[in-house]
Amino acid sequence: MPSQPSKALETFPNPEPSRDYTIRIRIPEFTCLCPVTGQPDFATLHLEYVPEQRCVELKSLKQYVWSYRDEGAFHEAVTNRIVDDIANAIAPRFVRLTSEFNVRGGIYTTVVAERRAPGWTPATPVTLP
Amino acid sequence: MPSQPSKALETFPNPEPSRDYTIRIRIPEFTCLCPVTGQPDFATLHLEYVPEQRCVELKSLKQYVWSYRDEGAFHEAVTNRIVDDIANAIAPRFVRLTSEFNVRGGIYTTVVAERRAPGWTPATPVTLP
Amino acid sequence: MPSQPSKALETFPNPEPSRDYTIRIRIPEFTCLCPVTGQPDFATLHLEYVPEQRCVELKSLKQYVWSYRDEGAFHEAVTNRIVDDIANAIAPRFVRLTSEFNVRGGIYTTVVAERRAPGWTPATPVTLP
Amino acid sequence: MPSQPSKALETFPNPEPSRDYTIRIRIPEFTCLCPVTGQPDFATLHLEYVPEQRCVELKSLKQYVWSYRDEGAFHEAVTNRIVDDIANAIAPRFVRLTSEFNVRGGIYTTVVAERRAPGWTPATPVTLP
Amino acid sequence: MPSQPSKALETFPNPEPSRDYTIRIRIPEFTCLCPVTGQPDFATLHLEYVPEQRCVELKSLKQYVWSYRDEGAFHEAVTNRIVDDIANAIAPRFVRLTSEFNVRGGIYTTVVAERRAPGWTPATPVTLP
Amino acid sequence: MPSQPSKALETFPNPEPSRDYTIRIRIPEFTCLCPVTGQPDFATLHLEYVPEQRCVELKSLKQYVWSYRDEGAFHEAVTNRIVDDIANAIAPRFVRLTSEFNVRGGIYTTVVAERRAPGWTPATPVTLP
Amino acid sequence: MPSQPSKALETFPNPEPSRDYTIRIRIPEFTCLCPVTGQPDFATLHLEYVPEQRCVELKSLKQYVWSYRDEGAFHEAVTNRIVDDIANAIAPRFVRLTSEFNVRGGIYTTVVAERRAPGWTPATPVTLP
Amino acid sequence: MPSQPSKALETFPNPEPSRDYTIRIRIPEFTCLCPVTGQPDFATLHLEYVPEQRCVELKSLKQYVWSYRDEGAFHEAVTNRIVDDIANAIAPRFVRLTSEFNVRGGIYTTVVAERRAPGWTPATPVTLP
Amino acid sequence: MPSQPSKALETFPNPEPSRDYTIRIRIPEFTCLCPVTGQPDFATLHLEYVPEQRCVELKSLKQYVWSYRDEGAFHEAVTNRIVDDIANAIAPRFVRLTSEFNVRGGIYTTVVAERRAPGWTPATPVTLP
Amino acid sequence: MPSQPSKALETFPNPEPSRDYTIRIRIPEFTCLCPVTGQPDFATLHLEYVPEQRCVELKSLKQYVWSYRDEGAFHEAVTNRIVDDIANAIAPRFVRLTSEFNVRGGIYTTVVAERRAPGWTPATPVTLP
Ligand SMILES: [Ca+2]
Ligand SMILES: [Ca+2]
Ligand SMILES: [Ca+2]
Ligand SMILES: [Ca+2]
Ligand SMILES: [Ca+2]
Ligand SMILES: [Ca+2]
Ligand SMILES: [Ca+2]
Ligand SMILES: [Ca+2]
Ligand SMILES: [Ca+2]
Ligand SMILES: [Ca+2]
Ligand SMILES: [Ca+2]
Ligand SMILES: [Ca+2]
Ligand SMILES: [Ca+2]
Ligand SMILES: [Ca+2]
Ligand SMILES: [Ca+2]
Ligand SMILES: [Ca+2]
Repeated sequence: MPSQPSKALETFPNPEPSRDYTIRIRIPEFTCLCPVTGQPDFATLHLEYVPEQRCVELKSLKQYVWSYRDEGAFHEAVTNRIVDDIANAIAPRFVRLTSEFNVRGGIYTTVVAERRAPGWTPATPVTLP
Repeated sequence: MPSQPSKALETFPNPEPSRDYTIRIRIPEFTCLCPVTGQPDFATLHLEYVPEQRCVELKSLKQYVWSYRDEGAFHEAVTNRIVDDIANAIAPRFVRLTSEFNVRGGIYTTVVAERRAPGWTPATPVTLP
Repeated sequence: MPSQPSKALETFPNPEPSRDYTIRIRIPEFTCLCPVTGQPDFATLHLEYVPEQRCVELKSLKQYVWSYRDEGAFHEAVTNRIVDDIANAIAPRFVRLTSEFNVRGGIYTTVVAERRAPGWTPATPVTLP
Repeated sequence: MPSQPSKALETFPNPEPSRDYTIRIRIPEFTCLCPVTGQPDFATLHLEYVPEQRCVELKSLKQYVWSYRDEGAFHEAVTNRIVDDIANAIAPRFVRLTSEFNVRGGIYTTVVAERRAPGWTPATPVTLP
Repeated sequence: MPSQPSKALETFPNPEPSRDYTIRIRIPEFTCLCPVTGQPDFATLHLEYVPEQRCVELKSLKQYVWSYRDEGAFHEAVTNRIVDDIANAIAPRFVRLTSEFNVRGGIYTTVVAERRAPGWTPATPVTLP
Repeated sequence: MPSQPSKALETFPNPEPSRDYTIRIRIPEFTCLCPVTGQPDFATLHLEYVPEQRCVELKSLKQYVWSYRDEGAFHEAVTNRIVDDIANAIAPRFVRLTSEFNVRGGIYTTVVAERRAPGWTPATPVTLP
Repeated sequence: MPSQPSKALETFPNPEPSRDYTIRIRIPEFTCLCPVTGQPDFATLHLEYVPEQRCVELKSLKQYVWSYRDEGAFHEAVTNRIVDDIANAIAPRFVRLTSEFNVRGGIYTTVVAERRAPGWTPATPVTLP
Repeated sequence: MPSQPSKALETFPNPEPSRDYTIRIRIPEFTCLCPVTGQPDFATLHLEYVPEQRCVELKSLKQYVWSYRDEGAFHEAVTNRIVDDIANAIAPRFVRLTSEFNVRGGIYTTVVAERRAPGWTPATPVTLP
Repeated sequence: MPSQPSKALETFPNPEPSRDYTIRIRIPEFTCLCPVTGQPDFATLHLEYVPEQRCVELKSLKQYVWSYRDEGAFHEAVTNRIVDDIANAIAPRFVRLTSEFNVRGGIYTTVVAERRAPGWTPATPVTLP
Repeated sequence: MPSQPSKALETFPNPEPSRDYTIRIRIPEFTCLCPVTGQPDFATLHLEYVPEQRCVELKSLKQYVWSYRDEGAFHEAVTNRIVDDIANAIAPRFVRLTSEFNVRGGIYTTVVAERRAPGWTPATPVTLP
């Protein structure tokens, strides 16, 4: 049975909830429609998060991204919406989404939004020389 | 009706004023005139800001950039002027402009200016490993 | 006295007319206006030629390129016009112009035009391993 | 009036039919559907042609590319179809289309098809050192 | 039903047998075993061919590549074998395989093999400027 | 005697236990099986650690990596398992593992996990201009 | 009147002394003589500063760099001298010079020196995600 | 038993003598001594050949390259000597060696030598679009 | 008189001991022997230091690096030894050595060691936007 | 005794006059003076030749390049002069010089000149797949 576009994000249990670690995902095939002109827009999404109890299932994430194909979406609003949808689905310790849109009118736009769980603080990063 | 160069920057409401997020814009087609020789200068502008109540409308930003085409402008002064114009138009929490000028006389010049809203402090950055 | 935009191309005598050799020139700062919308267009010009009796003087070439700043010009037509203007100015053995325009509407366009002096044949290229 | 997807390719008169020259166009935003799974496919199209009496109008080319957004298309067949559509629209001296598809199943596929006008022969290329 | 490794290459009818065109495939995930040490070897395969009546089906090609995972194979011999297997499966007008192996003992090895159908001659390439 | 895949990690004494220093190891040839489909997965592993009394022996590390070739492994779980195995083998002051998996379904995934010895604090990094 | 090499650095008033901003200058054409062998040395200079009341005039900076063409200069000493000369000419809030010398004897050397105005402290950098 | 440097090149039978194919080998770790100063020289060797009855065994090739470590060798002479030694060892249809030496005195030198078996002619290359 | 390999590091007086500054040196031509197999190893060394009263003389540093050519050396131990030798020779405020070894067994290893003078603290870095 | 700039090119006997082979030399440190403004110009020279009885000695070539440091030279003329000087010094079968000058007035210029010995014909190049 072929898969379908869907706003429902499926999840699976975090295999290592005892510690903070990073999951970084790059999705070069986001496309939606410009709400003003109706023409297609394209972007590469960069998602990174620290899971709490659940992780995002990748096939489901692909169907979620696919669900924007026929929707109108402004750059700033859609980035904030996606980060919210992911945060609602997996309640991560931290999540950041970077949407890098293709050039329009000679101008390149990127939007970056984050959500942080209340009370969560990242460990001090270890910067090895 | 074709668009025109214009110093008037149009704006739209920030769709997510409840949190800090980043809008990053690259404009490779800035051109003005050298005030000393009258010859064309060229630069790539890199704009990044954290919106408060308003965002910069992109078509209007393109017309704004266009408006420098027939004006004389020194590298240092024009960078500071543009960051001020944007700050005046949208009163952002933070804005930074990097103007990367093409080589002149074998020398490459870049100017970087910022404006920060009084009382605004950036969240401690989360540096994931 | 500051220089001015000008369609007049100045030349100087080829210092080595006794043999074929190549002069290759890259000009990243071509800008004209779109004849349909009136908005600025940008391109990098790549010029290469084998001189006969005259070479293109570089300062004059810069002023020539500058002269398109306020003119409307289609990509295909302007590339053919510039190669003709250069051919008329220096009557080279061979000249090729590649105009690499900036992206418009998500599409990147490059136009390449050549002129060859009647009766001129390039030497068989020596391809060293 | 916003533009629409359309298989109709508009053209304009070649401004320099008296000589062979090259028009090279890169379109990074082609997307269609996989006829087997129904999932989106993505490609960058590289088009290059030598015009005869007509050239492809760029805005119309964008709408033509857009028209594949909701169609199923195999890599090999769609590349051959597009090169035929362009050949039928402008009857060029020569046209080549390179479709560089995004990775699927760990495999990257590119398809290249050409059409040559009967009786047309390219000039011997001039390879300058 | 999950797929399995298999030496059987499936094919589909060439959608455009009336003309020569190129299908180019990059497979970065080839792995086999060194016949001398039994240790894993890795390579990127580059396949390009001009189809006659049949094309290689991609999912089947992936299973074919997978079938080498537990086999011992010398660089030179396996490259020649794969090009033969593909030639036997689709009887192409032309096929070339480039196997780019990972470094071993500080030495990087690449092997390139071709098969050409009897009587087939490539069209003179069109080299546009 | 040829080497064999093995989960046993051999170690050797740290030649400089008196100070913190960094050992950084890149392994481009990790491969395991997808637990869902049984198909091969591929990754580049980036390991960096500050040794305490023992260092990882490289030939043994290669055999350890090899031992995953016929095992099913999820991206998130296997990254956490490997960092634990290394931590158990050498009890380092600090260890970080970055697993950069090849694209699957158009999506690129990277997982980063760390372990820090209780009571160990990195020296303040010296950032020279 | 042609310009001349000169150790005199000309300056102009900082157009925006009310705030800290960055001026970054790259000069790929520094050359001096090796004091030991008398042979030419070459370097790329990277200058960055935060102006106080004066900025460095670019044409004068080019003449200043030119003035080293016939002078002997050691890598470490000349970097410190140039940063002092610039600091003396414009009394900046901060200045840093990075001299990246061409390879000599198979060894690549870079020297970085800074000067900070007494009492000046940089604003905490805003690191946007 | 550890391997030793050796001028003796071992070979193995060409597994596919029935057709021409290419073996391409990159060796980034060649080092010898400058005959004038006695100081070490370094180069990357690029070897490509079409085998006849024998191929070069890689471990033996590594030992052969190693054998130059304590020998004085001029760039031009050593490149010609190595290509001769390989030709003598395997009597290939064609062999080419490119020695890319590290910079000395600010000058980068590369030497390329070939040997062709008497009577051997390469097939006309197939240049796919 | 030709130079010789030597463990003796010569130094010269720091021309600017009144302030901290950085000297950064890249040496792509380090080679030693593997203590286990006797085969050559290769690395690029990256040295950076803040001088106190003495700087490392470059010709002497080249001879020092050369002195490892016939010595057996483990990656971790030799990096720590070299940083100690340099620290003993010039007693710098700070020194860091990064040894980036060539791939062995499909694994790339880099080792980074530092020495800091007792009581020395780096100035807070100035990070200009 | 330190070396001096000199127009005298020293040579040494070609160690392999029995066959054609290529010597390729890159010199990134050419500098002369602009005959119009007196200001320094910079270029990278790319020299490639097929020797007959003599080769260019590298130290002497460095001194030759150095000899232009205080001379005025036009781009086109100096490229033709240098190729003539080299041809006169070593009478090669073939020599080509490519002078890639640094940007001036926003324009990048490269000049390529060749000399071929009367009666010499290059072997048909072997293009391996
Ligand atoms: Ca894309
Ligand atoms: Ca983009
Ligand atoms: Ca620039
Ligand atoms: Ca530009
Ligand atoms: Ca472009
Ligand atoms: Ca692609
Ligand atoms: Ca690989
Ligand atoms: Ca490789
Ligand atoms: Ca990846
Ligand atoms: Ca990979
Ligand atoms: Ca330079
Ligand atoms: Ca350098
Ligand atoms: Ca090396
Ligand atoms: Ca080199
Ligand atoms: Ca390395
Ligand atoms: Ca250049």
